[in-house]
Amino acid sequence: MHDLDASYAGKKVLITGGLGFIGSTLAHRLVAAGAEVAVLGALLPDGGGNPHNIEAIRDRVTVRIGDVRDRAVLEETIPGVEVLFNLAGTLSHTDSMKDPWTDLDINGRAQLGLLEVCRARNPGVKVVFAGTRAQYGRARYLPVDEQHPLVAADANGIAKTAGEAYHFLYHAHYGLRATSLRISNTYGPRHQMRHPRQGVFGWFVRQALDDAPLLVFGDGRQVRDAVYVDDVVEALCRAGASEAADGEAFNLGASPVALVEFAEAVVRAAGRGRVELRPYPESSRRVEVGDYVADTSKIRQRLGWRPAVSLEEGLARTVAFYERERAHYW
Amino acid sequence: MHDLDASYAGKKVLITGGLGFIGSTLAHRLVAAGAEVAVLGALLPDGGGNPHNIEAIRDRVTVRIGDVRDRAVLEETIPGVEVLFNLAGTLSHTDSMKDPWTDLDINGRAQLGLLEVCRARNPGVKVVFAGTRAQYGRARYLPVDEQHPLVAADANGIAKTAGEAYHFLYHAHYGLRATSLRISNTYGPRHQMRHPRQGVFGWFVRQALDDAPLLVFGDGRQVRDAVYVDDVVEALCRAGASEAADGEAFNLGASPVALVEFAEAVVRAAGRGRVELRPYPESSRRVEVGDYVADTSKIRQRLGWRPAVSLEEGLARTVAFYERERAHYW
Repeated sequence: MHDLDASYAGKKVLITGGLGFIGSTLAHRLVAAGAEVAVLGALLPDGGGNPHNIEAIRDRVTVRIGDVRDRAVLEETIPGVEVLFNLAGTLSHTDSMKDPWTDLDINGRAQLGLLEVCRARNPGVKVVFAGTRAQYGRARYLPVDEQHPLVAADANGIAKTAGEAYHFLYHAHYGLRATSLRISNTYGPRHQMRHPRQGVFGWFVRQALDDAPLLVFGDGRQVRDAVYVDDVVEALCRAGASEAADGEAFNLGASPVALVEFAEAVVRAAGRGRVELRPYPESSRRVEVGDYVADTSKIRQRLGWRPAVSLEEGLARTVAFYERERAHYW
Repeated sequence: MHDLDASYAGKKVLITGGLGFIGSTLAHRLVAAGAEVAVLGALLPDGGGNPHNIEAIRDRVTVRIGDVRDRAVLEETIPGVEVLFNLAGTLSHTDSMKDPWTDLDINGRAQLGLLEVCRARNPGVKVVFAGTRAQYGRARYLPVDEQHPLVAADANGIAKTAGEAYHFLYHAHYGLRATSLRISNTYGPRHQMRHPRQGVFGWFVRQALDDAPLLVFGDGRQVRDAVYVDDVVEALCRAGASEAADGEAFNLGASPVALVEFAEAVVRAAGRGRVELRPYPESSRRVEVGDYVADTSKIRQRLGWRPAVSLEEGLARTVAFYERERAHYW
């Protein structure tokens, strides 16, 4: 066990969105480190939560089914917590355009409730917020550093920008310890596989394992910055354990890759499927923001983070997971 | 009547926040120009609305008492409108910290409702949004241009940033014609005089006319960019009439002045009162963002706007107004 894990031994930790993709993977890591882990999940229809995600650690975590929009749930779960990984949120660009109200309620308004409960009931807690590269919108330069203007190109990015800003407001005004990670496209085990609206990476894996065509829109040359979920979890753990991270936002990203190349790598890893280019559907074209590459020098320098899992290795692990666990995700 | 006014003759115009300080002054201008003016006002307790603000034009405007958070009110008032001046909003920095939920509901969430009704029921409408210099937070350089990062230092600035971003999102995705003016500290007739939480400029005028001390916090050297309400109205009219303004944000400002100098100018204009320096109360210190000076070259170049009223002239008009109308504002 390395020093970072040791720092979480015995720590009381709450993970909102803890039944989801990143949250449940974080729960596994923290349980292994000896933390006292509670997970909060709303299991919204079409959300990313899946109780199976924590099946293997079910007897070592406290599970609360509840919604961060419900103040009573926050009042009940936050007091006493030492590190709060605040991962509950929507992340579908297209869904956010169909229902921007729900998107704002969860990613913006509910964050105020969470922060207010922290301020009033647990002012010493450390909060790590899950931001997104969608806060930057269309990149004005590459790679994108944390100084890049936040000009979100979809409703999700606007609400996440407000939610993050509230965290830093509570940091500046009330001294609440808060950090945000602006996470780029994440792939790996435990992502939901029921629909493509939370990101195309997981959907490519499903299409390949189904031996179906992997549909890539446009010419497929759009660059995304792929990051394996374990590397995101490592960054969350470092942010949660670091005083130097308080009041700071950090980009995450690992493997800049054209969408068509990612799809081809999935086909190679799965040994099935085939890549097909298609014209953009209107709903996707409108939220397409062009190339994105994260400048991650800030988190590398300040928190000593670096990605440890290559695209090939990450996809091999992902394919192996879904081959084994398919019944729980399809 | 100059060309700008002529362009509003016979135009169907809706002003949300139309019973307030800037909105009612705009209503006077547009009525004089021959526009068909409807005003929507919620008359919230401690808000800026006052029915007396439109008393002189009461028979030439349609008045609807209603709240922009109420979708039915929007469905009823927006169809058929050609230019929508979207001025309803909260603007108290300190109130926004006490109740950030209401601030977000009005400045952020309600804007989604308004934009959605425009998109669905009146897609050709032109919308002019009242943004604020608070969107910039603490200035990283002076003067502040429109490229300055939006890092609001209070909840009001965060919600206004989201509200403005939704306007530009609807512009980019649906072609809705939307412009934002990021307005700095405005003074002049028709500002509410019941409390100081919507800006200290109006409060100084009241204190002087009451022959009371004008309390300036700190050393009084904090610079604000004072702009007379008629100059703001001129900018709103230009933005509403210009296709070149669609999708664009513009700073407004006119007379950079230290708070203590503004207070002294008020005392001179009123012939009463006296300036006194006081230590910051905690609630004000926390939302104090330091000096602000707007770079207004963009609106000068693109829309031909320039401020026409000097600080001395503006304060003389303001004092004359409240001497006459005091009974309706105190």
